[in-house]
Amino acid sequence: MKRRVTLKDVADAVGVHLSTVSRALDPSSPHRVSSELAERIEQASRALGYRKSSAGYSLKTNSTRMIGVIIPDITDPAFPPIIRGIEDALARRGYVAIVANTDGDARRERDMAMMLRDRGVDGLLLASVEITDDPSREDWRDATPVVTVNRQVFGSDVPSVIADEAAGMDAIVTHLVALGHRNIAAIAGPQHLSTGVLRQRGFLAACAALGIGGSPSVAVARGYREEEGERCTETLLATAPPFTALVCANDRLAVGAITALRRRGLECPDDVAVTGFNDMIMVDRLTPPLTTVRVPKHQMGARAADMIVDLIEGKPGLERSAMLPVDLVVRGSTARVRSTVG
Amino acid sequence: MKRRVTLKDVADAVGVHLSTVSRALDPSSPHRVSSELAERIEQASRALGYRKSSAGYSLKTNSTRMIGVIIPDITDPAFPPIIRGIEDALARRGYVAIVANTDGDARRERDMAMMLRDRGVDGLLLASVEITDDPSREDWRDATPVVTVNRQVFGSDVPSVIADEAAGMDAIVTHLVALGHRNIAAIAGPQHLSTGVLRQRGFLAACAALGIGGSPSVAVARGYREEEGERCTETLLATAPPFTALVCANDRLAVGAITALRRRGLECPDDVAVTGFNDMIMVDRLTPPLTTVRVPKHQMGARAADMIVDLIEGKPGLERSAMLPVDLVVRGSTARVRSTVG
Repeated sequence: MKRRVTLKDVADAVGVHLSTVSRALDPSSPHRVSSELAERIEQASRALGYRKSSAGYSLKTNSTRMIGVIIPDITDPAFPPIIRGIEDALARRGYVAIVANTDGDARRERDMAMMLRDRGVDGLLLASVEITDDPSREDWRDATPVVTVNRQVFGSDVPSVIADEAAGMDAIVTHLVALGHRNIAAIAGPQHLSTGVLRQRGFLAACAALGIGGSPSVAVARGYREEEGERCTETLLATAPPFTALVCANDRLAVGAITALRRRGLECPDDVAVTGFNDMIMVDRLTPPLTTVRVPKHQMGARAADMIVDLIEGKPGLERSAMLPVDLVVRGSTARVRSTVG
Repeated sequence: MKRRVTLKDVADAVGVHLSTVSRALDPSSPHRVSSELAERIEQASRALGYRKSSAGYSLKTNSTRMIGVIIPDITDPAFPPIIRGIEDALARRGYVAIVANTDGDARRERDMAMMLRDRGVDGLLLASVEITDDPSREDWRDATPVVTVNRQVFGSDVPSVIADEAAGMDAIVTHLVALGHRNIAAIAGPQHLSTGVLRQRGFLAACAALGIGGSPSVAVARGYREEEGERCTETLLATAPPFTALVCANDRLAVGAITALRRRGLECPDDVAVTGFNDMIMVDRLTPPLTTVRVPKHQMGARAADMIVDLIEGKPGLERSAMLPVDLVVRGSTARVRSTVG
C-alpha cells in the first residue's frame, strides 16, 4: 500500500514553499502564483499523483460537498430511480449522496438526520416526510438546507419536488370513462403521506368533473405494499357496490389488487380493470401488463438535487418548489367495460 | 438557522480550557480528565447541543468512517437489497456508504474509485468487478482496503462475499430432473462476470453429475436484462434441439424468456419450465410465479460491510472471503414434464 502524496511532497519536488503549492492548486485562492510556476506545480502534482484531501478541503471551506438523502427503504422499487437521479445530478456538480433508510419510522428519521448533520452534510433531501412534519422547526435542521422529494409537507415553506399527482389521476379516470366505466372504486394510499392525499383528492376531483356518480367506494391502504392492495380489494369486494374498475394509488397496491381479484375468480381486465401509479420496474411484464401513470423518478431526483445545491451555493433564480408532469401509460390491465361485479 | 455549537462554547460554559473539553469528549484520548469534570463537560455539551464535527474528527484520526460502494446501477433490482444490507451493517459500526453507479463502464468505475478516494473513504466495496480485474494493482487503490460483493475477481487475493452459485444451480437441475425433465437448455449470464461463469459451470457440472445427456444447448446473454432473455430464447428455439426446461442465469433473463416463449405460443410451465436466479422483488407476482434460487442479498451486503470494517480496523480473525448458502424456491414456473418442443 502506498503512502498518500501530500502537498509537502509537491512543494519539495518543485522547490517552493508549501503555501505556494496550496495557492497554486486552489482555484478560489485570491493570491495566485505566476502562470509559469502554476504550470510547474501542476505538472509535479500530476507526476507524483497528488490528490486533494477532502477532509482538509472540508475544514477550509466549511463544506463537505455531501448531501444526506433520507428515504423510507431503498428496497422499495419506488426509490432507486429517484436515488439514481439524485446521484447523477450531484455527481455533475461535484457532490455525493449519503443515503439513510428509516423504514417509515419517524424516530429513526430524526436519528438519521442527526447522524447526517454530525457528518457535516451540506444539505438534506427528504423522501420520507409526512404531511404534518415540519423540518424547518426540527432542532436537527440547524443551518442545513432541506428539500423534500416525491413527498411534501403541507403548509410548510420547505421546498419540494413532486409529481403532478392530480393530473395523473385525471388522466386515469378520463381513460376509464372513455372505456365506458362508470362504477369505479379506489384504493387510496396512506393518508399521512402527500402522495396518498394528493392522488386521492385528484381521483375524487376527476370523478366529480367527469360526472361519475355520487361518492366512489374507497378503501385506504396502510402502506404501499402488495398485501395492503390485497386486503383493500377484499374489503371492497365484500362491502362496496359493484364496480368495473379499480383505481389504485400506486403500482404495488395494483399488483396486490390483481392477486386478490384472481383469488376470487375475477379476471383483470375482463371483469375488473385495474390501474396503478408510478410505472415501477417489472409492471410491464405482469399478466396483464399494468396500465399506470409514469412518474419521472430520475428527473425528480435530479431536480431535487440541483435545487438543494442551488440553495447551498446561493445560486440566483432558485425555484422554491417544482411539480413535474406525468404520463398515462396504457397497457393490458384496462379494457372496455363488459360487466359489473362487486 | 442556528449557529453550530463549538467546543469553545462548551469550554466557556464549564470554565475550562478548550483542550480539556476536547480530551473529555474523546473516548480514545490517552490524557483523560477527572470523572467529576468529565461529567460536568458532558452535561454542558448536552445542554448546549454540541455535536462533534466529522471533518475535524477526520483530520485527527485520518479516518472518515465512509465506505465507497461501486455498483453497476442502483435501479437494477438485484442491487438495492445488497446496498440495504451494506448500509444497515455500516450504520451499526458507525460508518456510512457513498454509492456510485458505473453502468458497467470500466472507465467510469475507475473515475468513481478515484473520486471516492479523493473523498477520503476508508474502504471500497465493489459490486461491479469483472473476472479479469485486479483492484489490488490499480493505482487508485492506494492504501484503500477493497472487498468485492456479489461478484469476484478470479485468481486475485481481493476478498469477496458471494453466493454459492454452484449449489444454486445444482438445486435447480436436481429439481428439474426430479420433475422428469431430460432436455434442458440454458441461458448463461455474461461470461466476463463471476456470476455468469460460476452459474454456468455449476449448471454444466450438475447436468453431468445427474447424467443429463451430452452437452446441453446454451445461449449466452450479453447482460442481465429481460431483452437479452428474449433474444437468447429466440435463438434457442430457432437453433437448439427440442427442450422442455430452460435454466436462466438470473430472474431478469427468465422473465424475458417467458415473454419470448409466450410470443411463440409456448406456455410456461406447460410447454417449457423456466427457472431464474436471485429471487428478486416481484417475481412471486408474475404469471406463473417464478421458480428461482434465493440469494441472501441483504446478508451478503452486511457481511461484506463487516468484512471491510474489520479490515480497516485491523480486527483479528477477519475472513478473507465468504460464500453464502442459497435456497431453492419452487413456484409455478416449473412443473412435471409433459411434452417436448424446441
